[in-house]
Amino acid sequence: MQTVFHLIAAEPDQQRTALTIAENLTKDDSVDMDDVAVVAQADGIEPLTAGGEGSETVESMLKRGISFKACSNTLDLKDLSESDLVDGVETVSSGGGELTRLQDDGYAYIRP
Amino acid sequence: MQTVFHLIAAEPDQQRTALTIAENLTKDDSVDMDDVAVVAQADGIEPLTAGGEGSETVESMLKRGISFKACSNTLDLKDLSESDLVDGVETVSSGGGELTRLQDDGYAYIRP
Amino acid sequence: MQTVFHLIAAEPDQQRTALTIAENLTKDDSVDMDDVAVVAQADGIEPLTAGGEGSETVESMLKRGISFKACSNTLDLKDLSESDLVDGVETVSSGGGELTRLQDDGYAYIRP
Repeated sequence: MQTVFHLIAAEPDQQRTALTIAENLTKDDSVDMDDVAVVAQADGIEPLTAGGEGSETVESMLKRGISFKACSNTLDLKDLSESDLVDGVETVSSGGGELTRLQDDGYAYIRP
Repeated sequence: MQTVFHLIAAEPDQQRTALTIAENLTKDDSVDMDDVAVVAQADGIEPLTAGGEGSETVESMLKRGISFKACSNTLDLKDLSESDLVDGVETVSSGGGELTRLQDDGYAYIRP
Repeated sequence: MQTVFHLIAAEPDQQRTALTIAENLTKDDSVDMDDVAVVAQADGIEPLTAGGEGSETVESMLKRGISFKACSNTLDLKDLSESDLVDGVETVSSGGGELTRLQDDGYAYIRP
């Protein structure tokens, strides 16, 4: 199975919870996961920025095979470039576009 | 592809972000969208009311072909009638019912 | 049709709204529902705990045939056991796992 998490909450607490839930999914032996992805946009981009609050968690999740996708519109709006992101984070044309594409491909959607 | 956005947040900032993400999806040339709809309920109904905060954005999005659906239960609860809504906004029997129906029809779901 | 609601918000007001939307779906004659389930995790677990705020609503919804599933990781984190939950509430290995499984089975997902 495949699941995409939508990281958009502004509060660090809520971002932390979202990342924990995504990570816990990869540790749940009762579901056979082929892919777990996180699409981040708006203020939810913070943990994906190098040195940002929560970025160590993103780094360790990337090592566990979870993919992270940052919305390009958000980067533009916040005056960030790809070089400001944690190594390994991808960029996507738009958060809404990627969330649509992945669900169309059969991904479950979870918005913590 | 088809996507339904769930507009339910109470904060004007969050409502604005939700509408922007929906509008950005229609501008993303990398996804071939057949329909983008917004189902609003609870305090998320505000931008769909005539003269409400954010209603100009809803008006311009309607002109771009994005459809807006207001939950009838919410209208009852807030003592609003169809005539209080922005011209062109539809009403649906229940927000949950419409979100279920659209996903059953293959729509992706995004809750900003 | 089948729908799973994701109960994760911390605010009692938002939890109340989420439960009302789930209950309203079962009263909407325009959609033919086979199942309505609620997966609760993080602070959204509160109404599923015996005597917790909102627990009377959960009790009455259980009687109407709506199923409630509590995330085991959340129980561990909050030092709760199954005996602390409202009678009839099930536990699931992880909230993310159950939400993935149900969507994979064709459930619509709604996150109020």
